[in-house]
Amino acid sequence: MIIDIHGHTLAPPEVYQFQGRMVGSRGNPFAGFPKISDESIHKQLKKHVGLLQSVGTDLQFISPRPYLAMHSLQPSGMVHKWTEFVNNIIARQVELEPDYFRGVAGLPQSPGEDIRECLPELKRCMEELGFVGVQVNPDPMEGGHPTPPGLGDEYWYPLYEALVELDVPMLVHSAACCSPRESYTLHFINEESIAIMSLLDSNVFEDFPDLKVVVSHTGGAIPFQMGRFRAWRLRAGKENFDTALKKLYFDTCNYSKEALELAFKVIGPDNLLFGTELPGTGSVPNPETGYDFDNLKPVIDSIDFLTEEDRYKVYEGNAKRLYSRLNVTAAQTK
Amino acid sequence: MIIDIHGHTLAPPEVYQFQGRMVGSRGNPFAGFPKISDESIHKQLKKHVGLLQSVGTDLQFISPRPYLAMHSLQPSGMVHKWTEFVNNIIARQVELEPDYFRGVAGLPQSPGEDIRECLPELKRCMEELGFVGVQVNPDPMEGGHPTPPGLGDEYWYPLYEALVELDVPMLVHSAACCSPRESYTLHFINEESIAIMSLLDSNVFEDFPDLKVVVSHTGGAIPFQMGRFRAWRLRAGKENFDTALKKLYFDTCNYSKEALELAFKVIGPDNLLFGTELPGTGSVPNPETGYDFDNLKPVIDSIDFLTEEDRYKVYEGNAKRLYSRLNVTAAQTK
Repeated sequence: MIIDIHGHTLAPPEVYQFQGRMVGSRGNPFAGFPKISDESIHKQLKKHVGLLQSVGTDLQFISPRPYLAMHSLQPSGMVHKWTEFVNNIIARQVELEPDYFRGVAGLPQSPGEDIRECLPELKRCMEELGFVGVQVNPDPMEGGHPTPPGLGDEYWYPLYEALVELDVPMLVHSAACCSPRESYTLHFINEESIAIMSLLDSNVFEDFPDLKVVVSHTGGAIPFQMGRFRAWRLRAGKENFDTALKKLYFDTCNYSKEALELAFKVIGPDNLLFGTELPGTGSVPNPETGYDFDNLKPVIDSIDFLTEEDRYKVYEGNAKRLYSRLNVTAAQTK
Repeated sequence: MIIDIHGHTLAPPEVYQFQGRMVGSRGNPFAGFPKISDESIHKQLKKHVGLLQSVGTDLQFISPRPYLAMHSLQPSGMVHKWTEFVNNIIARQVELEPDYFRGVAGLPQSPGEDIRECLPELKRCMEELGFVGVQVNPDPMEGGHPTPPGLGDEYWYPLYEALVELDVPMLVHSAACCSPRESYTLHFINEESIAIMSLLDSNVFEDFPDLKVVVSHTGGAIPFQMGRFRAWRLRAGKENFDTALKKLYFDTCNYSKEALELAFKVIGPDNLLFGTELPGTGSVPNPETGYDFDNLKPVIDSIDFLTEEDRYKVYEGNAKRLYSRLNVTAAQTK
């Protein structure tokens, strides 16, 4: 079975019409959620399922499109409404195609706001909507000022407490970026590097040994810059960096084979989960291979030093182990 | 001959005493530069030469320690004084040990200030002090707000014009970082990724085809995240990313062998220059090898797919080709 833990919703155009209108009017007064027909949702969903089938993915976890999360916009009530609305769309998508999708919640994060403000939506998504995971943005300021507390800061502790209690893995994934010199897609990468170093330089895993953190896009720069941080931590008398890194999980959402080979060497198959972001940035044919960049299974299949057991873990085993809320029917496991 | 293009000055303690006092008093009034004896300078220099000898480096380019550049401090006059002072120390170091060192200038960058304010110091270092290169900080705000214009922005054009006119390669290297969640050493990495993408998404190399840019630390995250940016640029109908990347040069200052192997595959030996940052973050024994992380020659020597010609380019040839102000005596070339 192929489980893709990193996908985002393909929502119908009416969803973004609502976003545009709400933001334009600052959601004040809030005019209510529009009705989106099952037909409209299903039209996008058919495309999405077709894409999964074309690459042989059996089940994909989908969350709100991060670059449209608009966490830094004010008033924050707007962000709360938007997040709730998109989570509801995702719940309906999962309900319409339960063989293909599971939900990963977005949170109504707002910079400066107590992170406890996100907990009702987290609980609603887990307990009422049946989601399996949550997406957490380490930079709700979206590249603005002041920079938010690092993920190692106690600011996040009420969230971590809830995640451990609910046994929900968090996918670290930033959103848009307001700095003109940094695209959102590059901001993802930089924020992942910051998130990893902040977490591993903190007491988070001593205080929450059961916290499950999955870092998107194969960990930003860190697997490539291991030597620098190995030396940096050795000089500071800290725990071996390679050992520390194993407290985290990573997805395989990196579109080059050499980089994935490096990731498998540095991170190892126990801590890597299949993730593609399909459809997204990588949905364009790679002239070298003829198939899309985000069609990652043939890439991972072609890494010759991986064993069958390694591949099983990455494609299926690790996801089932981590995501305890994931119920997979016998029919789904071929 | 082994030329290390990425080193920083080992300055005597009196230099940092001066920095502390000047910053404490905001340099207002400015009390003048202290006299630093040749003896004091030579004491540090002897250590530094010993380190180079111990790893077999014949010649190292040294610039001001980036993490102490304090570009974001106000008043900017203080930064101008500090930069001038450190550049002078470097000039004396090169004069005392001309067989081992060449100077790379720091610039008195100040956020919001016209970049032309840096040109007198640039010219002084090149024309009076005989330096061979310059270090440019893409983030003089040092992680603060507002973020500065990306290196692709016309803000930097007067500098690029001067660099082309003087034929001086610039080493992209950020400084300190004011955000508590991001160490300066991680900020280096993130700023390099931003610098690369900003330059390659701009018209800089059309407007300045002869501009020579060397990116520190083997290019931040980019060689590892190539697939993402290949796809991103293909979708936008832009020039092939691998082709675009060849407009830039990179140093080998990355302390893991697997990562350097990836860099050689992605960047190639024509665009990589030997650089170690020795002594610096990597000056601690690697428990795996027994020698320091920043002793990179044995690492590069052990990459089995490199030819003798590749190694010649990386150790010597590319540096001589790029740094036209570098005069190497016959005695230095063994």
